[in-house]
Amino acid sequence: MQFDNTKIADAMYQWATDLFPISRSITGDGVRQTLNYLQSINPEINIIEVPSGTKAFDWVVPDEWNIRDAYIEDSHGQKIVDFKNSNLHVVGYSEPVDKVMALHELQQHLYSLPEQPDAIPYVTSYYQRRWGFCLTEKQRSCLQPGNYHVVVDSTLQPGSLTYGEVILPGREDKEIFFSTYVCHPSMANNELSGPVVTNALLGYLKSLPERRYTYRIIFIPETIGSIVYLAKNFGQMKKNMIAGFVVTCVGDNRTYSYLPSRLGSTLADRVTEHVLKYHASEYIKYSFLDRGSDERQYCSVHVDLPVCSVMRSKYGTYTEYHTSLDDMNVISPDGLYGSYQALKKCITLLEENYTWQITCCCEPQLGKRGLYPMLSTKDSGRQVKTMMNILAYADGEHNLLQLADKINESALQCLTIIRELERHGLLVKCN
Amino acid sequence: MQFDNTKIADAMYQWATDLFPISRSITGDGVRQTLNYLQSINPEINIIEVPSGTKAFDWVVPDEWNIRDAYIEDSHGQKIVDFKNSNLHVVGYSEPVDKVMALHELQQHLYSLPEQPDAIPYVTSYYQRRWGFCLTEKQRSCLQPGNYHVVVDSTLQPGSLTYGEVILPGREDKEIFFSTYVCHPSMANNELSGPVVTNALLGYLKSLPERRYTYRIIFIPETIGSIVYLAKNFGQMKKNMIAGFVVTCVGDNRTYSYLPSRLGSTLADRVTEHVLKYHASEYIKYSFLDRGSDERQYCSVHVDLPVCSVMRSKYGTYTEYHTSLDDMNVISPDGLYGSYQALKKCITLLEENYTWQITCCCEPQLGKRGLYPMLSTKDSGRQVKTMMNILAYADGEHNLLQLADKINESALQCLTIIRELERHGLLVKCN
Amino acid sequence: MQFDNTKIADAMYQWATDLFPISRSITGDGVRQTLNYLQSINPEINIIEVPSGTKAFDWVVPDEWNIRDAYIEDSHGQKIVDFKNSNLHVVGYSEPVDKVMALHELQQHLYSLPEQPDAIPYVTSYYQRRWGFCLTEKQRSCLQPGNYHVVVDSTLQPGSLTYGEVILPGREDKEIFFSTYVCHPSMANNELSGPVVTNALLGYLKSLPERRYTYRIIFIPETIGSIVYLAKNFGQMKKNMIAGFVVTCVGDNRTYSYLPSRLGSTLADRVTEHVLKYHASEYIKYSFLDRGSDERQYCSVHVDLPVCSVMRSKYGTYTEYHTSLDDMNVISPDGLYGSYQALKKCITLLEENYTWQITCCCEPQLGKRGLYPMLSTKDSGRQVKTMMNILAYADGEHNLLQLADKINESALQCLTIIRELERHGLLVKCN
Repeated sequence: MQFDNTKIADAMYQWATDLFPISRSITGDGVRQTLNYLQSINPEINIIEVPSGTKAFDWVVPDEWNIRDAYIEDSHGQKIVDFKNSNLHVVGYSEPVDKVMALHELQQHLYSLPEQPDAIPYVTSYYQRRWGFCLTEKQRSCLQPGNYHVVVDSTLQPGSLTYGEVILPGREDKEIFFSTYVCHPSMANNELSGPVVTNALLGYLKSLPERRYTYRIIFIPETIGSIVYLAKNFGQMKKNMIAGFVVTCVGDNRTYSYLPSRLGSTLADRVTEHVLKYHASEYIKYSFLDRGSDERQYCSVHVDLPVCSVMRSKYGTYTEYHTSLDDMNVISPDGLYGSYQALKKCITLLEENYTWQITCCCEPQLGKRGLYPMLSTKDSGRQVKTMMNILAYADGEHNLLQLADKINESALQCLTIIRELERHGLLVKCN
Repeated sequence: MQFDNTKIADAMYQWATDLFPISRSITGDGVRQTLNYLQSINPEINIIEVPSGTKAFDWVVPDEWNIRDAYIEDSHGQKIVDFKNSNLHVVGYSEPVDKVMALHELQQHLYSLPEQPDAIPYVTSYYQRRWGFCLTEKQRSCLQPGNYHVVVDSTLQPGSLTYGEVILPGREDKEIFFSTYVCHPSMANNELSGPVVTNALLGYLKSLPERRYTYRIIFIPETIGSIVYLAKNFGQMKKNMIAGFVVTCVGDNRTYSYLPSRLGSTLADRVTEHVLKYHASEYIKYSFLDRGSDERQYCSVHVDLPVCSVMRSKYGTYTEYHTSLDDMNVISPDGLYGSYQALKKCITLLEENYTWQITCCCEPQLGKRGLYPMLSTKDSGRQVKTMMNILAYADGEHNLLQLADKINESALQCLTIIRELERHGLLVKCN
Repeated sequence: MQFDNTKIADAMYQWATDLFPISRSITGDGVRQTLNYLQSINPEINIIEVPSGTKAFDWVVPDEWNIRDAYIEDSHGQKIVDFKNSNLHVVGYSEPVDKVMALHELQQHLYSLPEQPDAIPYVTSYYQRRWGFCLTEKQRSCLQPGNYHVVVDSTLQPGSLTYGEVILPGREDKEIFFSTYVCHPSMANNELSGPVVTNALLGYLKSLPERRYTYRIIFIPETIGSIVYLAKNFGQMKKNMIAGFVVTCVGDNRTYSYLPSRLGSTLADRVTEHVLKYHASEYIKYSFLDRGSDERQYCSVHVDLPVCSVMRSKYGTYTEYHTSLDDMNVISPDGLYGSYQALKKCITLLEENYTWQITCCCEPQLGKRGLYPMLSTKDSGRQVKTMMNILAYADGEHNLLQLADKINESALQCLTIIRELERHGLLVKCN
């Protein structure tokens, strides 16, 4: 795996390209293939199977769904809708069917989007048995009265739910958490971008000479996956987690956005807001009321973990969302790389979020240490302003994040100066 | 009494019409007639007499004032100003007089409004003995030099201050308080609207199958009445009151307004703001510095009860205020009914302002309970959004009011959904 | 000394005029002459000498600098730059030199401002030995190639740092602090305005029949002076100081401005903001990040005294700043007097910032005390509004400043009414 920053962007895009055609759902072989692929890049990923029927809080792991083929054939034997062309053509979790029926009956099982006539919608029915086909409004409007042969060659039977997990130990037991989901079929921004960016972050974390914190990274099916994962790991997570991130919709290059945790002011929230403020020229801050992914579980009442979501164009807000239009053109190497960089900065800020204290009373004499321009002129004061501001707020009360927010500077920029002031003995790290 | 909502609006207007001609002041038979009329509708009202000379904090109940007749006669024996035409013609608490005097002397006793030439102003002098007449600027400008016969046939002598009081018991001793005043002569919005809306609320409260809270409702003369009432009842009120409302100027149909308590964030304040936000398309929020009615006493330093004022057009802010123009055309059945509804909503919100907690970890599976659309489509998430948001904040920390504010929904709308979630065992009320 | 307000404005301007020509720096005879002059007006000022080499936190008192003469002579023996014309012509703390050199070598020692061709810049080099001349861009551009005779007749040798200090005792040990600086050569707003306004305030404080608080007033060289002063007096200051003010750039008549303390909400901050709000039609509120004078030391981490800066046009923000253009035309009697008045109001507010409590329950009956207009008319309520508002918030919790802020009135105006209410026994001062 390549951690050269100039190449990681392309690598992520290539991974997404490779994973795109796989037919994923909340269970089944598509999830396994996806995890195997990710594991081939980061062998630390453990793949875990949870049997159908396993209880998890209010939920039960459903039967496993696999699908071999599906199509609608017209009376001339012409396959007019074919799963082989797009795995979005079949409603997720469709039960098997092999029937001939008239158009008016078939219509009850068809889904299309009149306002997006070229898009195949993404539809699922996980917990209510049914079958159905999704097609473009254009295709649908061409259907002639007559009989159609409808085939869904799927299985729905006890099996398991599959997810991937990595725990990278650090000097401290306290954990930083990343969660992304691998249950969406052929859609790029939502959701191959999350898995590939998370996989790249995993590579980055492995490459670090040492880690202060322990990292818990999971690749799960959405909702049922996070619920099952919490049912198994909640105690440990609650005890140790200092910040967590749902990584979703991070592939397009349009905007950045952030969805806060339920309580809204956890360390994860504050770090994300700080990083995005300096990383992006602007970003959208959503409300927890706009939530829609696994933060729904991580932030639920009795769970309340410090987890927020970091995104580019949020699910539900962009035209291509949950349709066949969310293809590899929606995401880009640049889009993925920007998100990867933003999350790397969150990691750095968390790892370095110490508190410092100035070692002397009053301002130190920077000049005798070569830290101050020797000649006082009209403008010289400004050159050392940031350094002076750091010294002014290094009071042992403000950690890096708070100090940087206080003086309106990027924390990562402050860190460079703090290192220099430490070298000169002017700042000392507090316990 | 009619509690059919379609008829209560007309009933309130009729009561105001009946009460309009009575000559009220802070003491005297006009107050008694008014209270007797209200009692004829709600016999639970107790009418209480407090003797002149009774001390109440810094105040003393004044002598009782009654008036039989008053007029100004010109030299031709023509009554040019006559109390029988409008009880506003006499300065409230005018001492008796029967004199002939020249115009220039009479002018010292006349009050008119140059900027509202058709309005008789409302003037009183409760604690400084004097007499006077109020008339329109038009009338005044027609007065010719000459002698005038001036008669005020009034009595000012020891008697009592009269007020009405109802205590409706509830399951809890904690009290909700309504205060309105019955000391204004023939003016409609300020102040017959308050007494008639309060009387209708009293009827509504009686009609409830059960009440959580105890209700204390009083019909008093302004200022001296609330001071006297506090002097007698403060201990009990301080111990039990959770929220109180001064009901005044609630009859016109122009706007809603709210004047907060001194401290500004009592339960009464928060309930009123929440209700008005959803009840009215907009409302005016005044400052406690704009106060002018009995909240001056209820919120005074050593008293500090949780009382705010709910109004339509606030006293002092509308053209007709404190003049003969504030007549039955200023108020309307609709205007009164809107206020009645708003205050009913405050009552419901207070009665139901419990705290709930979700019974499971993570989100519950709504689908298996028929609470979730079975087919997941692009938009289906939005349909259950409010339900999900309620579940997300039903953490045993947010009461109904706080929960509704948090998720930007009307508390009364939330209540319907909470009831359904309770039925499904997903929410449980916290003690 | 004249404390007649009509004459104090002119007196301050005269003092500045007298002090203007003196060549000041952070040490040396110019500082002594300045302090002697101020002492001739207020003999209470003690002049203190701190020997070169004395350690103060991270700093050491430098050698004393004195200068007799300095010039640049061209090859015709013409003095083209002459210290006698302006003491800004020499870089502050220039070491002695007596050399002939070619223009290109001389240029390394010249300072001018291309964008302000008529201004001599103010340049210093206290802690790095060098010499240099400042001149206008116009002068500089006329220099012809050739040899120049350069003379700085200065001494840089062990001596002392000189400052002035007054402690005016009050009834309480708690202190109010004023700090201003006397190290700038011939510049008016920055900085003769500070010393002369502070000197006038000292006169005002002496003239008071009694003082509640103790006043600590110092005239120091900037930065090294405040550091040295803190090193000697920090314990006492930390124990007693309730509010302090850096007085700088208070002479021009353009605007008012305020720079908060590091923590931003000390008593000094709140008093200054309140006073400026009512004293000036508008004022600029800077951030502590914009700091540049001795609040850098007074508010530094381990010091954290409650000190803010009160200014007219802040250093660094006006065209004439740190150049020869900051002359006696920049400041004016009016400008100085406005600042003097603002600071006097701060003093009054601090001295009178007690807490009061209303003595009765409910509103008092103002009428029987002659405090209320006897006749209640449409507008009469407004006349006593401020009095009523004071009574409404005189709860023993709000001090004068908080009460005034709460009711949106000037504290000094409230004070007059509070006095009257005290006389009537309606308010009582809390311990």
